[in-house]
Amino acid sequence: MITRLSTLFLRTLREDPADAEVPSHKLLVRAGYIRRAAPGVYSWLPLGLRTLRKIEDVVREEINAIGGQELLFPALLPREPYETTDRWTEYGEELFRLQDRRGTDMLLGPTHEEMFTSAVKDLYSSYKDFPVMLYQIQTKYRDEARPRAGILRGREFVMKDSYSFDMDDAGLEASYQAHRAAYQRIFDRLGISYAICQATSGAMGGSASEEFLALSGNGEDSFVRATGGDYAANVEAVVTQPGTERPVEGLPAAVEHETPDAETIATLVDWANSQGLDVTAADTLKCVVVKVTEPGAEEPELLGVLVPGDREVDMKRLEASLEPAEVAMAEDVDFRKNPFLVRGYVGPRGLAANGVRVLADPRVVTGTAWITGADAPNRHVVGLVAGRDFEVDGFVEAAEIREGDPAPEGQGTLTLERGIEIGHIFQLGRKYTEAFDVQILDVNGKRSIPTMGSYGIGVSRLMAVLAEQRHDDKGLNWPVEIAPYQVHVVVANKDAAALEAGDRMVAELDAAGIEVLFDDRPKVSPGVKFKDSELLGMPFAVVLGRSFAEGKVELRIRCGETLDVAADEAVAKVVELVRG
Amino acid sequence: MITRLSTLFLRTLREDPADAEVPSHKLLVRAGYIRRAAPGVYSWLPLGLRTLRKIEDVVREEINAIGGQELLFPALLPREPYETTDRWTEYGEELFRLQDRRGTDMLLGPTHEEMFTSAVKDLYSSYKDFPVMLYQIQTKYRDEARPRAGILRGREFVMKDSYSFDMDDAGLEASYQAHRAAYQRIFDRLGISYAICQATSGAMGGSASEEFLALSGNGEDSFVRATGGDYAANVEAVVTQPGTERPVEGLPAAVEHETPDAETIATLVDWANSQGLDVTAADTLKCVVVKVTEPGAEEPELLGVLVPGDREVDMKRLEASLEPAEVAMAEDVDFRKNPFLVRGYVGPRGLAANGVRVLADPRVVTGTAWITGADAPNRHVVGLVAGRDFEVDGFVEAAEIREGDPAPEGQGTLTLERGIEIGHIFQLGRKYTEAFDVQILDVNGKRSIPTMGSYGIGVSRLMAVLAEQRHDDKGLNWPVEIAPYQVHVVVANKDAAALEAGDRMVAELDAAGIEVLFDDRPKVSPGVKFKDSELLGMPFAVVLGRSFAEGKVELRIRCGETLDVAADEAVAKVVELVRG
Repeated sequence: MITRLSTLFLRTLREDPADAEVPSHKLLVRAGYIRRAAPGVYSWLPLGLRTLRKIEDVVREEINAIGGQELLFPALLPREPYETTDRWTEYGEELFRLQDRRGTDMLLGPTHEEMFTSAVKDLYSSYKDFPVMLYQIQTKYRDEARPRAGILRGREFVMKDSYSFDMDDAGLEASYQAHRAAYQRIFDRLGISYAICQATSGAMGGSASEEFLALSGNGEDSFVRATGGDYAANVEAVVTQPGTERPVEGLPAAVEHETPDAETIATLVDWANSQGLDVTAADTLKCVVVKVTEPGAEEPELLGVLVPGDREVDMKRLEASLEPAEVAMAEDVDFRKNPFLVRGYVGPRGLAANGVRVLADPRVVTGTAWITGADAPNRHVVGLVAGRDFEVDGFVEAAEIREGDPAPEGQGTLTLERGIEIGHIFQLGRKYTEAFDVQILDVNGKRSIPTMGSYGIGVSRLMAVLAEQRHDDKGLNWPVEIAPYQVHVVVANKDAAALEAGDRMVAELDAAGIEVLFDDRPKVSPGVKFKDSELLGMPFAVVLGRSFAEGKVELRIRCGETLDVAADEAVAKVVELVRG
Repeated sequence: MITRLSTLFLRTLREDPADAEVPSHKLLVRAGYIRRAAPGVYSWLPLGLRTLRKIEDVVREEINAIGGQELLFPALLPREPYETTDRWTEYGEELFRLQDRRGTDMLLGPTHEEMFTSAVKDLYSSYKDFPVMLYQIQTKYRDEARPRAGILRGREFVMKDSYSFDMDDAGLEASYQAHRAAYQRIFDRLGISYAICQATSGAMGGSASEEFLALSGNGEDSFVRATGGDYAANVEAVVTQPGTERPVEGLPAAVEHETPDAETIATLVDWANSQGLDVTAADTLKCVVVKVTEPGAEEPELLGVLVPGDREVDMKRLEASLEPAEVAMAEDVDFRKNPFLVRGYVGPRGLAANGVRVLADPRVVTGTAWITGADAPNRHVVGLVAGRDFEVDGFVEAAEIREGDPAPEGQGTLTLERGIEIGHIFQLGRKYTEAFDVQILDVNGKRSIPTMGSYGIGVSRLMAVLAEQRHDDKGLNWPVEIAPYQVHVVVANKDAAALEAGDRMVAELDAAGIEVLFDDRPKVSPGVKFKDSELLGMPFAVVLGRSFAEGKVELRIRCGETLDVAADEAVAKVVELVRG
């Protein structure tokens, strides 16, 4: 097909939009791919829609290939199914809620576990119907607190969500692995740089879960990768290498000291070194007091969290560890209500003595000795040994992760990266099938509840991710498979013969099955045409310029080299490049 | 492609759904094409989604062919543009409104004139950019008071809406005619029986407007067709053939009579005939008093409507004639407040004498004589002549239309039909471009406001319409172009050789580019398979049944004949039938 710039509904902009911070947002708006309708809500202009649809098709092909069956649920949904799973409430402000003319509560679907589960319940009843893998490519709604970065985090967006239903755990594992492999094929075909990160399953419930994160300095998600292996994980999901247990026998007894003005780790270390102890912050033990509210509980409970003194508590990691409970730092009022909590001098013994649950960083194992608070003003204790002088109620992932921390399984050390979530796969288990009481007759004629997986790809976000990863300072640069047009033919010579030759060339390209964007605008300068061509970012451009008089054209590879080609060989050369 | 019924996510139902009234609703649910999620909100199951997408593609191809450029606006929209045109209010309860987490008003788009107009305003500034024709195929929302009939009138539905922008009226006319022709091609390709009806433009504003109505006894829209020509019109848009004016000179003088117990037309006619007048109801003049509220007016005004006594006032026709004013019948309280209105004896003279505006049916022309009320209890007047004894302030289309009424331009008489609106094309004019102050520099460098057309097709509704027009009592019957699969291959013979032959046959059909639904279910009886095949409605079915042992298969044409074909010729025969 051929689209002429002289008639295409497009206006490119020289200036970045005022509200844009990241390159993909700036470039997609400037190049006329998207247009803002409201905060976090975008219109797809012709070029943008073409690329969106092509991305959808890549996703569709690969999900069909693993046996996915496509259907389409509404975006406007009744409240009841989301009451069944409590997500009507749990989603909080992120859910768009509305009432119809009869005052019936409805919502705009943020994700569709409920709808798929109840469809399977209605249609299927026997193990012979399973496994089944269903999906949709659909417009979703989430009322993000901070819609940002254009279509990178919108409030209306296109998502591919699939759901697997299996009769047993082995089936779920197979469905999960099939999706994992399909996701790799999708992102590989699109040419995205990404990592597969172990993830916590968060509000979705369930067990195993991995996130596909596109590498990007502008990403909102932090994750780690191993220097010596393919391990990658969300910061929330990193499992700390536990310390080595040692026998407590023979260790020196703990000694309390007067430590004035040593309320911080730094001042405590200074004091210890002034006593000739030769220690670092890693030898001190920080006792952080938080409040934990379990779901359904009216009041929070205190919790002591022990981490080596050289590390902060990472609240997101702590929250992920304690999910679904809510966590907050203890405040002044909590210290006042509990006088045994002496700010700056809290220690594990005082917490335990007063019935406060204590969870420790995995490095705080039996036989490790610590300098920590002695539960009295201006007093610390040196050589307090875990497993001898204090016990903990369990371990918790709460300490911050740092560049250079050891990676698991001897895969070297961890590097800290930033990424954009493009896919997420979950082994949900029976959370939703139990909530909807999906009873299926198994091979023995007994009722059994199928187990479920849930798998999402941010389809519209992928377009922004590609723009983030593949632009230069002049504009976009699409991969061939999802470029709105594969070739941009630019007539940059005022000779009528050049326009005629361009016309012939685009007709030949079209006949060869190439999609062509044709800059036939008569009164636009070559300079503006070149700028537009770079901004719009088709992978290849053919320029009929000055050298056309000598029978030559330029074949420009976006973000790559420029070749001088004989005009009558250009079509063949382009076809060769497009077919890769 | 091949889809196997043994794995397809489908359950056919033998019983009609309890809430279904019309065949399309019953059959689409029973055949597993759609599934109700909420009143007027449906999910698309795999078969339904395939047909929906194919209908979309037919629409897309034809709109692209007339130069339409596809883009996609959000469904979740800000309030402001709809405030600009006042439709935020005018839409009333039909608009789904909601607030986001910041309390900002938003809406779910019922139609997108505002968004397209403001996009054109932002992107374009010179006459050289025009004409432009833009469209989308998008999910729309209208909170119907009575969502009914499944996807025939849903609250979430798929629509193709296009918009043309031209610099002058001739351009608008050309864009309008291009759409009209494209709509004919679309509906012809889909094999829909329809009429193109002159329409009133209703709430959309603008001038010329036509509706495409699919013929259906279950349609909500009444329209008329001419027996002797291709005239068709909405009942609201039918223009009455005016009466013939006659000279008033020489006509007998009007005479008042005492007419006790003649408050109705029937009793009045009886009285007149008892006086030897030899008249019918068509010789009497009915004076109906209504209240008209103009937009922005605080109080309604009285209006007298004169129609021949053999006809009722059709309030929908009257409302369409008086749009955008609102119309209601005068009530007891209005009669009490205006003592000159004598119920049963209202006449044109009394109305005029008391300053009430009077509009008449076009048959009430100068020189016509009427028996009508004399504005006093128990009194009528005979021989009251229009243009002599009373004047009217104008004419109005208010009288009901009846089967057998004369059609315009000598096209015979009118028949009354029912239909389902499947398309609507409007010459909107400058209503929206003026509201958004779209100023474009014309060829003389002067600012000019472009004129606009708006064109809609109910894409999801088309699927229901096809089901309405093409089913039989056994099930659906899709046209080849939009059937989910072109051929349904049924193995109805327990011999393993039959299943193997079926497998080979579907592979060959697939290789020939035919889309195949393959009933390979091992433990399902032939009878159930045949019932399912008829219910699902693929245009052709190949049955490997009893005669397979003799090397024969049945080729069943849905709602048509069944052919006995040699098994090894079946593929070639199917390909021939599919290619038509």
